[in-house]
Amino acid sequence: MATTIDQTQTHTEQWHALAQQLRVDSVRSTSAAGSGHPTSSLSGADLMAVLIGKYMKYDWDHPDNPANDHLIFSKGHASPLLYAMYKAVGAIPDEEMLTFRKFGSRLQGHPTPAIPYVDVATGSLGQGLPIAVGIALAGKYLDKLPYKVWVLLGDSEMAEGSIWEACGTASHYKLDNMIAILDMNRLGQRGTTMLEHHGEIYAGRAAAFGWHTIEIDGHNLEEIDQAYQEALDTTGQPTMIIAKTLKGRGVSFLEDQLDQHGKPVQADKGDAAIEELGGESNIVIQTQKPEPMSPFPKGSNASVELPTYELGAKAATRVAYGDALKALGAREAVVALDGEVSNSTYAEKFAKEYPERFFEMYIAEQQLVAAAVGMSVRGRVAFASSFAAFFSRAYDFIRMAAVSRANIRISGSHAGVSIGEDGPSQMALEDLAMMRAVFGSTVFYPSDANQTAKLVALMADTDGISYIRTTRASTPVIYGADEEFTVGGSRVVRESENDQVTVVAAGITLHEANKACEELAGEGINVRLIDLYSVKPVDGETLSSAAEATGGKIVVVEDHYPEGGLGSAVLKGLIKGENYELMPLKLRHLAVRVMPGSGKPEELLHAAGIDADCIANAVRELAAQ
Amino acid sequence: MATTIDQTQTHTEQWHALAQQLRVDSVRSTSAAGSGHPTSSLSGADLMAVLIGKYMKYDWDHPDNPANDHLIFSKGHASPLLYAMYKAVGAIPDEEMLTFRKFGSRLQGHPTPAIPYVDVATGSLGQGLPIAVGIALAGKYLDKLPYKVWVLLGDSEMAEGSIWEACGTASHYKLDNMIAILDMNRLGQRGTTMLEHHGEIYAGRAAAFGWHTIEIDGHNLEEIDQAYQEALDTTGQPTMIIAKTLKGRGVSFLEDQLDQHGKPVQADKGDAAIEELGGESNIVIQTQKPEPMSPFPKGSNASVELPTYELGAKAATRVAYGDALKALGAREAVVALDGEVSNSTYAEKFAKEYPERFFEMYIAEQQLVAAAVGMSVRGRVAFASSFAAFFSRAYDFIRMAAVSRANIRISGSHAGVSIGEDGPSQMALEDLAMMRAVFGSTVFYPSDANQTAKLVALMADTDGISYIRTTRASTPVIYGADEEFTVGGSRVVRESENDQVTVVAAGITLHEANKACEELAGEGINVRLIDLYSVKPVDGETLSSAAEATGGKIVVVEDHYPEGGLGSAVLKGLIKGENYELMPLKLRHLAVRVMPGSGKPEELLHAAGIDADCIANAVRELAAQ
Repeated sequence: MATTIDQTQTHTEQWHALAQQLRVDSVRSTSAAGSGHPTSSLSGADLMAVLIGKYMKYDWDHPDNPANDHLIFSKGHASPLLYAMYKAVGAIPDEEMLTFRKFGSRLQGHPTPAIPYVDVATGSLGQGLPIAVGIALAGKYLDKLPYKVWVLLGDSEMAEGSIWEACGTASHYKLDNMIAILDMNRLGQRGTTMLEHHGEIYAGRAAAFGWHTIEIDGHNLEEIDQAYQEALDTTGQPTMIIAKTLKGRGVSFLEDQLDQHGKPVQADKGDAAIEELGGESNIVIQTQKPEPMSPFPKGSNASVELPTYELGAKAATRVAYGDALKALGAREAVVALDGEVSNSTYAEKFAKEYPERFFEMYIAEQQLVAAAVGMSVRGRVAFASSFAAFFSRAYDFIRMAAVSRANIRISGSHAGVSIGEDGPSQMALEDLAMMRAVFGSTVFYPSDANQTAKLVALMADTDGISYIRTTRASTPVIYGADEEFTVGGSRVVRESENDQVTVVAAGITLHEANKACEELAGEGINVRLIDLYSVKPVDGETLSSAAEATGGKIVVVEDHYPEGGLGSAVLKGLIKGENYELMPLKLRHLAVRVMPGSGKPEELLHAAGIDADCIANAVRELAAQ
Repeated sequence: MATTIDQTQTHTEQWHALAQQLRVDSVRSTSAAGSGHPTSSLSGADLMAVLIGKYMKYDWDHPDNPANDHLIFSKGHASPLLYAMYKAVGAIPDEEMLTFRKFGSRLQGHPTPAIPYVDVATGSLGQGLPIAVGIALAGKYLDKLPYKVWVLLGDSEMAEGSIWEACGTASHYKLDNMIAILDMNRLGQRGTTMLEHHGEIYAGRAAAFGWHTIEIDGHNLEEIDQAYQEALDTTGQPTMIIAKTLKGRGVSFLEDQLDQHGKPVQADKGDAAIEELGGESNIVIQTQKPEPMSPFPKGSNASVELPTYELGAKAATRVAYGDALKALGAREAVVALDGEVSNSTYAEKFAKEYPERFFEMYIAEQQLVAAAVGMSVRGRVAFASSFAAFFSRAYDFIRMAAVSRANIRISGSHAGVSIGEDGPSQMALEDLAMMRAVFGSTVFYPSDANQTAKLVALMADTDGISYIRTTRASTPVIYGADEEFTVGGSRVVRESENDQVTVVAAGITLHEANKACEELAGEGINVRLIDLYSVKPVDGETLSSAAEATGGKIVVVEDHYPEGGLGSAVLKGLIKGENYELMPLKLRHLAVRVMPGSGKPEELLHAAGIDADCIANAVRELAAQ
């Protein structure tokens, strides 16, 4: 079936034949699926034909070759075009291409790394470019390899702020290994884009953001060829090619038409479309290949000496995060990124020791997380830090990172009302809910510096999205430096044979609970105190034992809004066994239920009803029942 | 104490005296608080002195005058400067100014609408400008009043993508009533900003985004004066004034110094700083006032005729959202905004009927939510719609909208795996967790078109952040058009005297559960089926009754990841009474626990374990115990 390209043709004729095949296949796969985006694929077909026909260096037999170029479809809905390219380079057979969007197929509606040639999931617009920045940073500053990062952009997504975070960052870091190709087809989902075919405005904006820009006719194969060459020849800055295209290009009744977004060709017109495009073909081309290279070795044998803190001393968990991160720097694969607050998150400790592996992302949290995802694509162990509250800015990126099966570590400092005077804008009070709901995530909330160090080290070896919530204030060191902590673990901090109530706390509230327990002990009320440092997964066994030992009387206390945090985690943990049984409980849930203001940490903890006094009162009430 | 400005002085001398007072007071309030950002306030003092000294029109005795200008400190950490301005215009006394950051004071670390002159909470950078876009849109297109929207920007926040979403939107809508003042002081929190003092780059970017730009020395009072006049004279586009300033300006040992971010003046240097600035003063100036105007009437008596759907017909709840929104359009205060997917969310129904009250926000979800917040500032009943998944892009804005006490309504369509072929990037699977965790939020998840219409109408009259999750697929209409639904309500869809198991569902899973119940009834297993359409607040009473009636056997089924959604809401609802008792339960929680791919809705519901078959199996298991 497969044919090679006709060598008697000129390059332009060959690319044209290839582009038409990409178009035909985009129509065929979406028709077979009964859904998808053929018209958004047709506009970019010429651009992609020249890319694989001449420029892109990729060893399709070895997608793990670290020298391969990267290609990211930031406009993920053009997946039919991408999958048609995979067929055209011989990476997938025609039959598989026609499984597009079917249950069980790796060729999903939007690209995901279920396919080995796809670096990251796209489909939430505006994400491909900032992730590409992370890959390009790795290429230029860490890998020091000549691979290029090609990004196909849609014009609708140019309205997303994340695109401009990426543009600013890419030029700041002089990422001349990045080439963005803007498929400016003028039409969005429900009508025209904001800037329609005003390529000069896109070019002006990209240039103002420090990019080399080239405006071309995106259906003129020679202009495309020249633009790619010019991009490759450009040094010291990234290049954006603004390609004027027509949505539905090549099919007269689809071309530049409104109301043709995201629809397969009408059933009775499919043949006509394919005929107009020149009919089916099965050309398989050879792309350029990079030099063969072995995949980077995984893991590291570097010995990491974690920081230790003296029992009884005071230390902030955010400081311990910084110390541990610096210690982990002994592993070459570890990189750190921060959102211009590294003197608060203490990522600066790493930055000072390993400046070549620290990346300042400025106040651009979407780019911060996206760059970490890009580092993950390049096999790096990336830690991204900012105030916990500000990761809410990047939630879509975190959600999508999980779809991408990326391995990233996030450190959110300044959690809860306990930060004090800065007030609610700086207080993370929904981060546990947000991070627990991420697919496959691991969520830690340590109370102690030694524990923090151990958990940060665990994060380095934990796949998926892991999150650590740190505290601004210095708190007592309560664990010895030799104690171990685990994913899914917890610690019983106090217990006796006649505990009347279980208290579950983490982070700042563990110390409040400890104080309450001291006071209650003087009154003859014994409490089992659990440090639920692993909020997800949660240690159901320890929680259940404690609940049983204390007659189902439990106080959960957290510096977080009531929904989705520690309280939810505890209830989830208490459902146990094959019968999914939840024992009878008397459960007081102390959480932040009033909008906080400014004040001293102790004033705000009290006002929120989560300080030692409030915990003691809740325990007394339960104990008396 | 208070003195008026010295009328023998030139304007420039008067403004200088005023600016120095603003500086002194910024030092005083932060010194009294022992925290805060004096240096970030000092850089902007000259800019703000001229603004209140000559340009800003504001009736401080009537902050509810709709003709007042708006002033938003997008760089919210410069709150000491803002509060010093309030003192200088006579809005607050010196004593109150010195309560800055103290517990119970309305003068919080970052501005919030606890103060009547503050429109919205800031402090999460990059939010003030996009919110101002919403206010300016209302001013130009709805209120048609001549008020101006002044925004003080920090230079660090220019790295946030949301700033550029705002810039693109403001020029697209020709918002010549917006004036942004960039306090370019070169220094961020932990070092220099990305662009330092390169005002020409900021100006180039803003100009490329369609703004009129003016570069000035931000400490030259005459240049400031001229710039404001030029901005007011500019028509057809917004203006950005790029003001080169020095952080800590006016105090020799603070000026342009690194490591002076967010710190009060050292205790032993406070007097020296104040002395160098000319000493304390208590000038009170008269600002310009707008024409007196009565506040807009609240509410509306317009009769709204909600759409109705026939029992047993099929209709998608997203369509019902659009129909209901259009019906609500009979109320003048209702406005709608959408993120370029109005043909999917069905906001287009409103847009076609009321184009003058519909605002296309393109693919810029942060701007979408921010504009809704701005509309709320102007008393509008704003509904913002997009795919539910993409509101994760705007989570920080939603979080802050709650701090702002804004009243906004969010409609998220395309929830869960039931959307089918598009795949996980388009599936909201964490939105319930995200929205439940928002302070004071209301969260609806209807299963039926008539119910949706009623809930949308309720949202219009619900304060705070309300959210409705709609379904892509058409589902059977199961409620009559005359039935009523409430905030915090639920519906028992099936019940009998000998129910063995309770099933709790909402949205798409309610229909799956209904099918399961039919099948189970044939096997002699009776189920109490609850439609938990109000996910927050939750109807604990109905849940508890059902749990008691069915021996604590409950199946919860949701098209959402397991954390923070319906399952959490049910457990929360079941904790009851003064003793916070949770009865013994056997609880099966069916939720999406495997990363979905593409496929037909029914295939994906089955693969996720949340379709009728899976529900029936779970019920059978529980019933047999």
